[in-house]
Amino acid sequence: MAQKPSIPKGTRDFSPLEMARRDYIFSTITEQFRLFGFHRIETPAMENLSTLMGKYGEEGDKLLFKILNSGDFMRSVKPEDLEQRNLPRLTNELCEKGLRYDLTVPFARYVVQHRAEIQLPFKRFQIQPVWRADRPQKGRYREFYQCDADVVGSTSLLNEVELLELIDAVFAKLKVNVAIKVNNRKVLAGIAEVIGCPEKIVDITVAIDKIDKIGLEAVEAELVQKELTPAQIEALRPVLTLEGDNTAKLAKMADLLKGSEEGTLGVEELKFVAEAFDAMGHKAALDLDFSLARGLNYYTGTIIEVKALDVEIGSITGGGRYDNLTGVFGMPGLSGVGISFGADRIYDVLNALNLYPEDLSGASRVMFVNFGEKEGMKAMSVAKALREQGISVTVYPDAAKMKKQMALANSEHIPFVAIIGSDELENDTVTLKNMTTGEQQTIPTDRLAEALR
Amino acid sequence: MAQKPSIPKGTRDFSPLEMARRDYIFSTITEQFRLFGFHRIETPAMENLSTLMGKYGEEGDKLLFKILNSGDFMRSVKPEDLEQRNLPRLTNELCEKGLRYDLTVPFARYVVQHRAEIQLPFKRFQIQPVWRADRPQKGRYREFYQCDADVVGSTSLLNEVELLELIDAVFAKLKVNVAIKVNNRKVLAGIAEVIGCPEKIVDITVAIDKIDKIGLEAVEAELVQKELTPAQIEALRPVLTLEGDNTAKLAKMADLLKGSEEGTLGVEELKFVAEAFDAMGHKAALDLDFSLARGLNYYTGTIIEVKALDVEIGSITGGGRYDNLTGVFGMPGLSGVGISFGADRIYDVLNALNLYPEDLSGASRVMFVNFGEKEGMKAMSVAKALREQGISVTVYPDAAKMKKQMALANSEHIPFVAIIGSDELENDTVTLKNMTTGEQQTIPTDRLAEALR
Repeated sequence: MAQKPSIPKGTRDFSPLEMARRDYIFSTITEQFRLFGFHRIETPAMENLSTLMGKYGEEGDKLLFKILNSGDFMRSVKPEDLEQRNLPRLTNELCEKGLRYDLTVPFARYVVQHRAEIQLPFKRFQIQPVWRADRPQKGRYREFYQCDADVVGSTSLLNEVELLELIDAVFAKLKVNVAIKVNNRKVLAGIAEVIGCPEKIVDITVAIDKIDKIGLEAVEAELVQKELTPAQIEALRPVLTLEGDNTAKLAKMADLLKGSEEGTLGVEELKFVAEAFDAMGHKAALDLDFSLARGLNYYTGTIIEVKALDVEIGSITGGGRYDNLTGVFGMPGLSGVGISFGADRIYDVLNALNLYPEDLSGASRVMFVNFGEKEGMKAMSVAKALREQGISVTVYPDAAKMKKQMALANSEHIPFVAIIGSDELENDTVTLKNMTTGEQQTIPTDRLAEALR
Repeated sequence: MAQKPSIPKGTRDFSPLEMARRDYIFSTITEQFRLFGFHRIETPAMENLSTLMGKYGEEGDKLLFKILNSGDFMRSVKPEDLEQRNLPRLTNELCEKGLRYDLTVPFARYVVQHRAEIQLPFKRFQIQPVWRADRPQKGRYREFYQCDADVVGSTSLLNEVELLELIDAVFAKLKVNVAIKVNNRKVLAGIAEVIGCPEKIVDITVAIDKIDKIGLEAVEAELVQKELTPAQIEALRPVLTLEGDNTAKLAKMADLLKGSEEGTLGVEELKFVAEAFDAMGHKAALDLDFSLARGLNYYTGTIIEVKALDVEIGSITGGGRYDNLTGVFGMPGLSGVGISFGADRIYDVLNALNLYPEDLSGASRVMFVNFGEKEGMKAMSVAKALREQGISVTVYPDAAKMKKQMALANSEHIPFVAIIGSDELENDTVTLKNMTTGEQQTIPTDRLAEALR
């Protein structure tokens, strides 16, 4: 019996037009990665679960797609785990492998595994899909692409500056107006320190990260719940209400954090990065945002997040500096900094704003109509010559009704249709129709390539 | 405790150099797909198991990677299936999804699911990884790429001719010498018919497919085992010992099969395809091979297989015509023809013969040495101008020892190193070192781009 075909929820097919658009995004990002001296690597879709588990928190472990062992997958299952329905243990017994959840952990694993071949500092980029068993919703998919660039083995802040330049260059090329928000993990630590509760840095940053969404009052209410004292909340207020341009904000923050060594270092790092970026002259504005928290457990210095200005959507790119990414795989003390372009959200932004170049259909330049065997063979041989000159050609394969043949040219937005009938066959000519203007001209075959350019 | 990192057996990491080589193969194939008017689509890595199961035979079902259901994966497991260790039933209860095994079944699913949006004939290409739980061995991986081009919705043999031209164009570009073997399923059916055992077509084709490997005698021994009579084996011998050029072979085969309508049609199809291909003038020779069987259950007309001439390796590309690919998904009677380039075997061939272009390192054109903050900032700003002109630049991020900085340029095969010291800073110049010749010259900054081209 015939099945009604469907695909798993949260996954997508991409049609030729959608792929032309996605390829435009990927190739724009790839081109900039290369111009900035990053090298492409690829890692397998499947990693050992021992590589992935415990790297994304308890919630992340649940969101990993696990792969059932091949052959007799029951061989390692213990009866008591079945009896107790111990899902975590059963998972480990049934599955050794999982699908890549992000590109960062596989990269860390790669660096350690191939350390003998790698010359530091190592600039790598990686554009591959990742999979998460998240509840699908608008803008959230179970299969989506990440486009990551990282530099490992250098603590220089020039790397941060260069990544900000890279972000600016990509979105300038894509014609997306963005705000690039920057903060520094050391500033957040300094804030917690000077208000007298360094141990509450997580609670504080989680709360203040929401200020754009819920406002000052709600943030302060949350901090009360987290048992900050009124004096501490009072001390925090100047941080939350900082105003002015970057220079003014930095000066005020330097003053507020002068009692914290770590905080002072964070302000200095931010100052260097912001000034160096500005000195280069760029399209996007750098927005120092001391409420930006972003993956706190992970980052140790600069934090970066990019928002589109003309569409309501979450972060479309993000990243930061980390100091111990490879430690868990036995290579401690390697500092790195990286960014990740969220290709699928960028795709949504470009769709919403219709920011694609006009000639992006991926269509052939010309379609040859087919009038029968002899004419078809002639068309095939002219097509061969055109393709050798780099012109994309479709030959309609069947001598179908003219209307049907033209319908294909129309539906694929092919700009020219070439006709070889008996007259053209005899005179070695082609009648070329411009599908936009309707204009038609008969020209010698050997001038066709020129006419199509 | 630190883990010693590794990846699942049968999978691979690809280093920057390996990726540069693979990208060269993929972009060469992609360019030809586009020149021939094919459109890219992508489908999800995960398909419903109901889409995949039963499409690749019993062995194929076992080789599918299945994905453990999310959440409480034990919820649908029946106690009696556990008790009886009924692996096929348990698989279905534990898993709803599997990883793509090839690109053909997902394409068939795509065509049916999106039939309302598709204008026939539909020429699609698709370049994505597939996964098979095969025993890994030399040249066989558990994750590998397929590069497929198919035309559906047209029975014209011009499609076959065009696909053969496409194969020829790709391998000409890659500089790989190949033999393109062609046969026709109808010829195989005709052979079984005229020797009087049409019901044994599978046994016969499986046996004669091995003639190159095991020789005539062993093939005939196998046919005895399959209970062909001596008279039938005798009647088959002329087929197995056909000699001469394509024209001579076709004439003899037409004679041998004149008693079979289907066989005669097959010979005529082959004749048209071979003559049309020859008429176009190509690099690779077309080799009519009546022992070629290739996925018999699946194909219904032309069968194509490509072998590299200068390396011992299996088929590197294959394909053929099928008449009912989409029937199982509820859309019968749609004819199509397609080919699949085995990118990973092609990669092995190019590696074995070292057929890559010389400048394929993916390296930056120039690396700026870093002498300190001021010099580094100047290098960053010159780098920005160069990148805007399409030149790939690496700026060494730290003011490290000269030897260490040069080691990076050497290890990445960067052809030029640019030096901005205090003299250059003062005079707005750059000292450029050609890493191949060792030559060094100091030039004004605004002439650097020109010097690097």
